[in-house]
Amino acid sequence: MQWSIEQLALLGAQDDGSVCRRGFTKADCEGRQRVARWMEEAGLSIRVDAAGNLIGRWDGVEPGLPALVTGSHIDTVPTGGHFDGALGVLAGLDVVRTLKASGRRLRHPLEVIAFADEESTMVGCKGMAGTASFDPADYTTSNGEPIAVNLERIGGHWPSLASARRDDASIAAFLELHVEQGSVLESRGDAIGVVDGVVGQRRFSIRITGQANHAGTTPMDLRQDALVTAAEVVLAIETLAIRHPGDPVATVGRLQVWPNAANVVPGSVEMTVDLRDLSPQVLEELVDGLMQNLETIGERRQCSIAIEPQFEVAPTPADALVIEAVAASAAELGFSYSHLPSRASHDAQELGRRWPMGMIFVPSRGGLSHSAAEFTSAEQCRSGAAVLLKALLRLDQML
Amino acid sequence: MQWSIEQLALLGAQDDGSVCRRGFTKADCEGRQRVARWMEEAGLSIRVDAAGNLIGRWDGVEPGLPALVTGSHIDTVPTGGHFDGALGVLAGLDVVRTLKASGRRLRHPLEVIAFADEESTMVGCKGMAGTASFDPADYTTSNGEPIAVNLERIGGHWPSLASARRDDASIAAFLELHVEQGSVLESRGDAIGVVDGVVGQRRFSIRITGQANHAGTTPMDLRQDALVTAAEVVLAIETLAIRHPGDPVATVGRLQVWPNAANVVPGSVEMTVDLRDLSPQVLEELVDGLMQNLETIGERRQCSIAIEPQFEVAPTPADALVIEAVAASAAELGFSYSHLPSRASHDAQELGRRWPMGMIFVPSRGGLSHSAAEFTSAEQCRSGAAVLLKALLRLDQML
Repeated sequence: MQWSIEQLALLGAQDDGSVCRRGFTKADCEGRQRVARWMEEAGLSIRVDAAGNLIGRWDGVEPGLPALVTGSHIDTVPTGGHFDGALGVLAGLDVVRTLKASGRRLRHPLEVIAFADEESTMVGCKGMAGTASFDPADYTTSNGEPIAVNLERIGGHWPSLASARRDDASIAAFLELHVEQGSVLESRGDAIGVVDGVVGQRRFSIRITGQANHAGTTPMDLRQDALVTAAEVVLAIETLAIRHPGDPVATVGRLQVWPNAANVVPGSVEMTVDLRDLSPQVLEELVDGLMQNLETIGERRQCSIAIEPQFEVAPTPADALVIEAVAASAAELGFSYSHLPSRASHDAQELGRRWPMGMIFVPSRGGLSHSAAEFTSAEQCRSGAAVLLKALLRLDQML
Repeated sequence: MQWSIEQLALLGAQDDGSVCRRGFTKADCEGRQRVARWMEEAGLSIRVDAAGNLIGRWDGVEPGLPALVTGSHIDTVPTGGHFDGALGVLAGLDVVRTLKASGRRLRHPLEVIAFADEESTMVGCKGMAGTASFDPADYTTSNGEPIAVNLERIGGHWPSLASARRDDASIAAFLELHVEQGSVLESRGDAIGVVDGVVGQRRFSIRITGQANHAGTTPMDLRQDALVTAAEVVLAIETLAIRHPGDPVATVGRLQVWPNAANVVPGSVEMTVDLRDLSPQVLEELVDGLMQNLETIGERRQCSIAIEPQFEVAPTPADALVIEAVAASAAELGFSYSHLPSRASHDAQELGRRWPMGMIFVPSRGGLSHSAAEFTSAEQCRSGAAVLLKALLRLDQML
């Protein structure tokens, strides 16, 4: 598996050690051809669905059973690492090879999938889950070309996107191995993360309007300073997340000041708020807390504060049975593990809206991802693949 | 006087009611010609010094005495009001006319000066005070042309700028009438402000460096968020000024976030801090407090904070005798008055570095200035001019 990770990282390799293999680019197409060849060599029958997903399938012993599905994506962000996505696809192939080498065969069909364009449009996983938009305008592709043109390029077919939607009865469960892209496992010293689900997200923009004024002639008690007001909001948002008994995250990532001149008391500020948690109720509580804070702060500071929703992604809880299969497998193999949510988006988040879903995380060094510094050791990757195999075997018995 | 204010406001008049009469422009030159004619009509002998100052002089009764000087500037910011600067020059002419009409003549010479380019380079008042730079690169003019070319245009002469510096013995005192450009007088309900001096200023840039990270996958307790750190700094700076027993002002006017993306924990923030007060000691205390805060916050937040001085302007205290002359005159005329510092720059700030200086403020409606909304009523202007006359008469006796 390590060899295939390194081989794939050559396609789109950048001088700084990062990988640029954005969806639908030449490097992405080459990567998909390489993976398709490896799938065939592993003895899988391959096809590409209308959403551009590259699907390798190995029929099971018992006819008519739904498939156990694993996989991830091989496209990257502009300065991607070697492991994000690739690990999940290549570990899936490793599972197939290991099973074949040991002469075992599953009751269920086993599918290994490289989903299309996870880092930008998620057209692959959404197409398969039936959650994809049919309006081309909703797809902002990394190369700026229409989604129809891009899908054609990788063997997909936009006009029949609906056909990529799988029947309920065609999939038994989806299990994705992925690097954590955070530092929770590393800080806890755990080898394996049992993912409880993919967090939901609420994104808002906030506009604070005070009164721009001369920074010299306006005494402190006669100011309506939009930036000090914004500073209180930023700290209140942090406190909301920290004080919550769960472990939600809340981030003000973007903040803009007007007129943004050293000698002018700021007149207005615009900022974004990003809230993420696994529980829809926790998200609701955070939003309520935010609203209360904005009202109190705005009143005290004599600034008007407007808040507008930008988007909302519902959380996708993992399936209890799949969680149990992953945890039991990690324990049986003697790996230290702990439960955590996935706070980033993954193909699993869309598959999980339709079918029992689970994810396995392995540590990311320093929590870094989407950069040349992304690193998970060969041993850590092997541990993840071992848990993936064991958990699929368990599910094959349980389901 | 009201008539002349309105006449002058026609030169550079903008559609929105503001005035654009930036230093050295055609409108500025026309304004200076108009003022020069009014000076001559009032019976003053006029000259333009090398620094471009338009000086109208009326000799006193007793030969050899230093001059009592009043005046201000007639250049404006790009969207200037009708009163900023103009009032001080035109009220000075009004004083001369009133004295002549009543047959009175001062012991000292009386000079009314329209200083050159106050809003940009302050070349006029600095040239007269001998605080002007002789390096052309230090002059950022509003039209981008070299200061030498600009000075020539208004009758000044760059090569002999040094000649504009007045001898110590040539000026007895400088008294400037100006609109407040803030809302202290209005909020106190006072007609006259007795200015205790022009505040000094310390400007810094601060750079906070944390760790940019994924807004989803980075738990709250593993973040080094440069923006929440900056928020604490912004509030600490406000608190420093508010808690100080004096009434200093402190402003973070400019703040920039990197990478400034909604889904990324901010990695670094750059901001400016502007501190102003009349007392050098208070400024020193504020800077000390700022340094302590930066250290505490940076340590607790695990962010590195670098601070760099941008510039420093020493405070110019007004002269006790001139302050007393203004206060006594206001009282005698039955105007409610109060003491306050000038927190904006004025020609008086440079003259005050060499000679006894004072300023008279009249209210600015809503504290607004540098805009079409700048307004001081005719009655308020007359009150200011009356105090100016009375105070000059007092100084003429006292000095």
